Amino acid sequence: MTQDTSRKIAVLGCGLIGESWAALFLHHGFDVGAWDPSEEARAGFATRLARPLAQLGELTDGAVQKGQLALCATLQEAIEAAEFIQENAPESIPLKQALYAQIEAAPGAATIATSASGLTWSDLCGTMTTPDRLITAHPFNPPHLVPLVELYGPDTARLDHAEALYRAIGRVPVRLNKEATGHIANRLASALYREAVHIVAEGIADVEAVDAALVNGPGLRWSVMGAHMTYHLGGGPGGIEHYLRHLGPSQQRRWDTLGTPELSPEVCDKLIEGIKTASHGRTIPELEAERDAGLMAALKTRAKQI
Amino acid sequence: MTQDTSRKIAVLGCGLIGESWAALFLHHGFDVGAWDPSEEARAGFATRLARPLAQLGELTDGAVQKGQLALCATLQEAIEAAEFIQENAPESIPLKQALYAQIEAAPGAATIATSASGLTWSDLCGTMTTPDRLITAHPFNPPHLVPLVELYGPDTARLDHAEALYRAIGRVPVRLNKEATGHIANRLASALYREAVHIVAEGIADVEAVDAALVNGPGLRWSVMGAHMTYHLGGGPGGIEHYLRHLGPSQQRRWDTLGTPELSPEVCDKLIEGIKTASHGRTIPELEAERDAGLMAALKTRAKQI
Repeated sequence: MTQDTSRKIAVLGCGLIGESWAALFLHHGFDVGAWDPSEEARAGFATRLARPLAQLGELTDGAVQKGQLALCATLQEAIEAAEFIQENAPESIPLKQALYAQIEAAPGAATIATSASGLTWSDLCGTMTTPDRLITAHPFNPPHLVPLVELYGPDTARLDHAEALYRAIGRVPVRLNKEATGHIANRLASALYREAVHIVAEGIADVEAVDAALVNGPGLRWSVMGAHMTYHLGGGPGGIEHYLRHLGPSQQRRWDTLGTPELSPEVCDKLIEGIKTASHGRTIPELEAERDAGLMAALKTRAKQI
Repeated sequence: MTQDTSRKIAVLGCGLIGESWAALFLHHGFDVGAWDPSEEARAGFATRLARPLAQLGELTDGAVQKGQLALCATLQEAIEAAEFIQENAPESIPLKQALYAQIEAAPGAATIATSASGLTWSDLCGTMTTPDRLITAHPFNPPHLVPLVELYGPDTARLDHAEALYRAIGRVPVRLNKEATGHIANRLASALYREAVHIVAEGIADVEAVDAALVNGPGLRWSVMGAHMTYHLGGGPGGIEHYLRHLGPSQQRRWDTLGTPELSPEVCDKLIEGIKTASHGRTIPELEAERDAGLMAALKTRAKQI
């Protein structure tokens, strides 16, 4: 994407999530003003951007104009003349609210998009004088590779602008009609994980087997088609209507048999042991590199299909 | 894979699942004896195999020796001299048990692998004189594309043989240590679907948004890395141990907020309406073709990564 005039995005918080956002905006030709209260976090930021920027370059054969990064000593400098503010502070209500107060005290009326994962819009807007400026824009880890951004907010015009902006940096925005803790994706992930823990806790299968079943079964299919549409196809020629009428009661009974495990010390020990076995000696950075390589291969395939 | 001597597999039941199994075995050079009580099902079988065989050929550049298909008028003919029996009868205990009795009455001692989805090994083995011959070998739809096969049974030697056989036809077998209704994958799918229905029922997001969030978020990631390993990486440098110790309690609280929706007429109406919108006029065969194309692209990517 080539910008006619420079457009500036403020990225507040130079941790992992801020890193991904900055890389995405820079890669797609936006200028970024990045700020973090920690001088140490700011100092290493440009260096840490190299990896996500290289990954994004590889995904698009590097043929994309880069924006300019400015590391800012103050929040005010970062948001000055920014058309959009992506906030990636730690998940603390008072901390985020203090940031919003600083932003509101400065000139400008740019949308403040919070990457908040476990906190909702209502949790965060309470102390704002202009709560309409706030939207939830939750990315999915690692955000420069996984396309999803979950959007919620009261101001449709701001949501429209955010959606266009995220599409311009290759994201897939999805809107919530009503807020919920965990938004959509983490609620789905949490529901699945609960049963994944239950299966291990009950001794039905071990950690490695559960993960292998997911990656080679429903996970693979869900990377192509969602759960609702899958049940539509599972209903045969009559689709979801047939499915719900004929198989709905048995699905309901199956739901009743799903587990509600406790993360007791014994269950935690089983999960930790299971991960040790499933890791086969790979360190966390090695596992992350494998995940990223897999995601990048999958994304290249998608790009070809479109 | 090239066979030195011909190896024969019996495929009992010529429906969709039997079709996928037959295509897989034939594609990898095994001979198949196929039988179905319905003459109509038998008559159209060879024609219906064309599509999955073409898809498998495309996945491996067609460079694989094909086995011979024999359409058999009797079950006895199908299982005669077969080294392995893949049973794909409808999900009915008496119906499957009647088949097993016929197999036991015939000569031979080949393993009977049931594709049963909702029924467990214990549900099915009760009337057998040689229950050790029975194993569960549950594939995931569409079985010729999705690699997972879930295995359970009491006889380790038979499970080892089945596992080797499934690997030889490009499947990824996963063993259960203890049987459970829905095995692993359908339990995970059911848990996720319950929350997907809850989100729609509560008006948090519509069907299309939920599916888009899944496909572009956790679904994509689960096609690369399982849920357990994902939480290991979510724990930072301390991994799953850190995660469970520090974030376990908040995960447990999140589990408590997950929904337990009823498939009431109102909820069913919402789901049906949502699928109509999300389909954008595409028919079920069109949606299936899209799903298969997406799966094949993903599988080609995996093959390149290995």
